[in-house]
Amino acid sequence: MAQRFQITILGGGFPVPVADNPEKAYNTALLITPDGQKAAQYQKVHLFDVDVPDGNTYQESSTVMAGTKIPTIYSSASLGKLGLSICYDVRFPELYRQLSQQGADVLFIPAAFTAFTGKDHWQVLLQARAIENTCYVIAPAQTGNHYERRYTHGHAMIIDPWGVILADAGSTPGVAVAEINPQRLQQVRQQMPSLQHRVFK
Amino acid sequence: MAQRFQITILGGGFPVPVADNPEKAYNTALLITPDGQKAAQYQKVHLFDVDVPDGNTYQESSTVMAGTKIPTIYSSASLGKLGLSICYDVRFPELYRQLSQQGADVLFIPAAFTAFTGKDHWQVLLQARAIENTCYVIAPAQTGNHYERRYTHGHAMIIDPWGVILADAGSTPGVAVAEINPQRLQQVRQQMPSLQHRVFK
Repeated sequence: MAQRFQITILGGGFPVPVADNPEKAYNTALLITPDGQKAAQYQKVHLFDVDVPDGNTYQESSTVMAGTKIPTIYSSASLGKLGLSICYDVRFPELYRQLSQQGADVLFIPAAFTAFTGKDHWQVLLQARAIENTCYVIAPAQTGNHYERRYTHGHAMIIDPWGVILADAGSTPGVAVAEINPQRLQQVRQQMPSLQHRVFK
Repeated sequence: MAQRFQITILGGGFPVPVADNPEKAYNTALLITPDGQKAAQYQKVHLFDVDVPDGNTYQESSTVMAGTKIPTIYSSASLGKLGLSICYDVRFPELYRQLSQQGADVLFIPAAFTAFTGKDHWQVLLQARAIENTCYVIAPAQTGNHYERRYTHGHAMIIDPWGVILADAGSTPGVAVAEINPQRLQQVRQQMPSLQHRVFK
């Protein structure tokens, strides 16, 4: 019988104050292990300064300080090798290539994707990150209506390393559950050894 | 009325002999302008050495010499900025990031994708390359049955910079036609200025 572990990812992201700037916070993803320890932390690098054609202007940089570093993946015998990112980062494949070069098996992409962009881009980009890095993708996602006229796409997803969608929480609040299977990871990486064929790093 | 130009892409790829190795050829993509000139050339970098779980073992490196260079994009006032790649390259986002950093507007991805991998990966990866680079993608594709037991996926596609599929040639021999519209390119890059937000280059 497979061992089961609970991993908690707090916020996507969680605001962490900037020491020397009271006006801003880091948009921070935190990974908490079953024993309550902080396993990994990531400060969002790519800030969402975008005029979305749904009537909303997003200027994340007005309140958020950009992180500057690729996070170090968290690695343990029981949980595997886990890499963090946040939301808009999913548009930047180079971040995930660096995580997979560190040996990541699972990529976390918590998000509050807009409904407007999410309908066309969310699933495609998540699947691509899974397929091209032959990694599991776990993508918690905000859903619904916020701040009067903002809508988020939802569809929290868990995707396997071949790009198969294992769970999709849909557009209403809910939970997505799927098995992260090391044998499946190994199988996919035998069937598609593209990580071994990287030339430009 | 829009001006119309015909671009020809020869083979995906076209075998070009290696000077000092009679056993091998470069898998080469050639782009020919309307006046018959060679506009751009690319020698495939990522070779398909994969045991596909459909009973076929592909060992491209046994007959093909790997290219080692990111191609220089072709740029002209009438045709825009065009970047070349071939088939298996589509799994390596870093190649397209370098083309888009050179200013590419259109990414060519001619392919003979296997039916087994194509059904799950072809469309997703093409759309992702279009979306993340806010570029048009033009992807000619071999279709049908070859060499007895090999099957290719087909579905030659033209995709716009938002990821919308403009044309899909399906799985039978045919032609995909779509408009490459500079105004649409500009519109998408205003709506989604992610290329301006790259941090890791």
